Amino acid sequence: MRDVVIIGIGQTRVDEHWGRSLRHISHDAIMDAMRDADIETADALYVGNMLSGELSGQEHLGALVADFIGLRGMEAMKVEAACASGSAALRVGIMAVASGIHNVVMVCGVEKMTDALSDDVTSGLATAADQEYEVSQGISFVGLNALLMRRYMHQFGIKHEQFAGFAVNAHRNGANNPHAMFQSAIKPETYLRAAMIADPINLMDSSPVCDGAACLILAPAEHYRSKAKAHILASAVATDSLAIHDRRDPLTLDAVALSSQKAYAQARITPADVDLFELHDAFTIMAALSLEAAGFAPRGRGVHLALDEEIGIGGRLPISTMGGLKARGHPVGATGVYQVVEVVNQLTGAAGKNQVAGARIGMAQNIGGSGATVITHILGGV
Amino acid sequence: MRDVVIIGIGQTRVDEHWGRSLRHISHDAIMDAMRDADIETADALYVGNMLSGELSGQEHLGALVADFIGLRGMEAMKVEAACASGSAALRVGIMAVASGIHNVVMVCGVEKMTDALSDDVTSGLATAADQEYEVSQGISFVGLNALLMRRYMHQFGIKHEQFAGFAVNAHRNGANNPHAMFQSAIKPETYLRAAMIADPINLMDSSPVCDGAACLILAPAEHYRSKAKAHILASAVATDSLAIHDRRDPLTLDAVALSSQKAYAQARITPADVDLFELHDAFTIMAALSLEAAGFAPRGRGVHLALDEEIGIGGRLPISTMGGLKARGHPVGATGVYQVVEVVNQLTGAAGKNQVAGARIGMAQNIGGSGATVITHILGGV
Repeated sequence: MRDVVIIGIGQTRVDEHWGRSLRHISHDAIMDAMRDADIETADALYVGNMLSGELSGQEHLGALVADFIGLRGMEAMKVEAACASGSAALRVGIMAVASGIHNVVMVCGVEKMTDALSDDVTSGLATAADQEYEVSQGISFVGLNALLMRRYMHQFGIKHEQFAGFAVNAHRNGANNPHAMFQSAIKPETYLRAAMIADPINLMDSSPVCDGAACLILAPAEHYRSKAKAHILASAVATDSLAIHDRRDPLTLDAVALSSQKAYAQARITPADVDLFELHDAFTIMAALSLEAAGFAPRGRGVHLALDEEIGIGGRLPISTMGGLKARGHPVGATGVYQVVEVVNQLTGAAGKNQVAGARIGMAQNIGGSGATVITHILGGV
Repeated sequence: MRDVVIIGIGQTRVDEHWGRSLRHISHDAIMDAMRDADIETADALYVGNMLSGELSGQEHLGALVADFIGLRGMEAMKVEAACASGSAALRVGIMAVASGIHNVVMVCGVEKMTDALSDDVTSGLATAADQEYEVSQGISFVGLNALLMRRYMHQFGIKHEQFAGFAVNAHRNGANNPHAMFQSAIKPETYLRAAMIADPINLMDSSPVCDGAACLILAPAEHYRSKAKAHILASAVATDSLAIHDRRDPLTLDAVALSSQKAYAQARITPADVDLFELHDAFTIMAALSLEAAGFAPRGRGVHLALDEEIGIGGRLPISTMGGLKARGHPVGATGVYQVVEVVNQLTGAAGKNQVAGARIGMAQNIGGSGATVITHILGGV
């Protein structure tokens, strides 16, 4: 098996891209990455996307994007694992290079959510949950996460305002990221006064509906050492039941634990070795639960890490360093690729005002559904 | 890179499975394959599917199916390339085993099309075409293929009845396949009198809307020689523009040519070495165009192969040996896996009354859209 490195990264700003469709924003991210890698072609393209069929009436993004970037003919396909689609595409790209089947591979995560009716977006996001046993009862995806958050608060005696630190940290970091959707810091009061979406999840607990595309160029380490920006030290996928009521314990994300443990073993590290963690803070409750199951806090204690000295850029374990899903934005099928782009920027000292000093090992963790697919990548600097 | 073999196959009958949903028919095919391979678990599951989001409100099939078959926790994801989704999932499975990342991998193609409004099925299938430049003009997917067929008839002076042999062959073969949707032979008159769908495509030119699931178990040759049923000799993906009007020549399927040539080179064979060819006869015109671009007939002459002595079980190049997309059925995201299951049955002498005598090398070719993604697999007997 060949070692895999990242030789180029690209991203559009996460935004409401009213004038540009799926093919356009994919193109923008891929061109950005190809310039960065200084390449003119590639062997294959794996597109991570969740909702193009439901929201744009367009499946078949692999061939569509390959053609639009001027590489008609190349191998291309789409990979989907709900909100973990971006990292699922990365997983496939890694297998393509590791196997020796391909040398230079492009992984593009893309999502376009704003150019659709909001009811359709709500229905689309609910396709991540169990249609027959959850969604058929009338609950939305944010509603499912609200049940988790309420249960967490009840079981561990947590007040809603204790989650504020996650949103404040994300927005403070997003303020320094030119690719973030929200580039403004918020005060704790903004969190406390935010409009309720699905009690207890308010607007500041929740990531936004948005558009975006990000791209990674992969290659084998043996031939591309001089171009390498970061090494893939681990790539690990784990799953759980889609339906939350079927889980062993709704407040323990077993797939986060399993995926993280597999990744730590592959990279031969422990959680203490991780210099920054791009976690899946689609909702603040998912940040707390992820920190716990990934080994950074005991069960029921993840929310207590929502403090500057813990998760801030200078803290013990910086998270959401470029704004996370909350402030950079969460174009669902693209998010996993954005996370890894950001880790690469941290490992190459290109994170600007949000640079984590001396970052050598970064972890990105992308979650599909409320924890049913969890994909963890650990990257090392060169 | 490790050689990959198939150690188990499974399939449901292609049918209208009103009482069973995506998870159920996936389960049935996978259990069938696991029994065949005599295994109790696997390292990963790659699901090929096109329309679960649009027609069943359910994305995230990887984790859903992994859980439902009792293997919660395992790596799983969905792969999509329109009607070539099944073979795209096989492509990913091959990379997973070839790389050494996984040993035993399950590839399941599944589609459920009948439990939806027919307008939604029409819209769903059109997501394989270019939404912004074709579908937005009001044309359906069958309409696009009708334009191709009309152009072919005009340019090469072909009469509609000359395509009859493709439908007659498919139905005759389907009659002996217990997993086929249509298990009855048809006469040429049936073809001639069939209701028109989109002139000149009639009901007998067209594959049906249906449900089905099929499964392959892959493993590395080096450790599974005793269980091997067939060797993967080639796996090749090529793409073209989604929009037919953007192609170099609408009547030449460039991606079929490119994918076939790559596959022949990998397998070190020529078209003359192929003992049977499971081609993508979603419409009779696609059978003709595929035979031409894959190297079995000159341009404009593929339709002249629609004769027993050419494509019948005892012919020069048997095609659609278990009924093809026309008679076995075309549950779109599952078809590519069904094709390979059927090739394995031919190579192991398990094709019953439709056995191609002495079959040693079989080719399966799965097409997404009207030729925008083409995935070719060549298998060899053990």
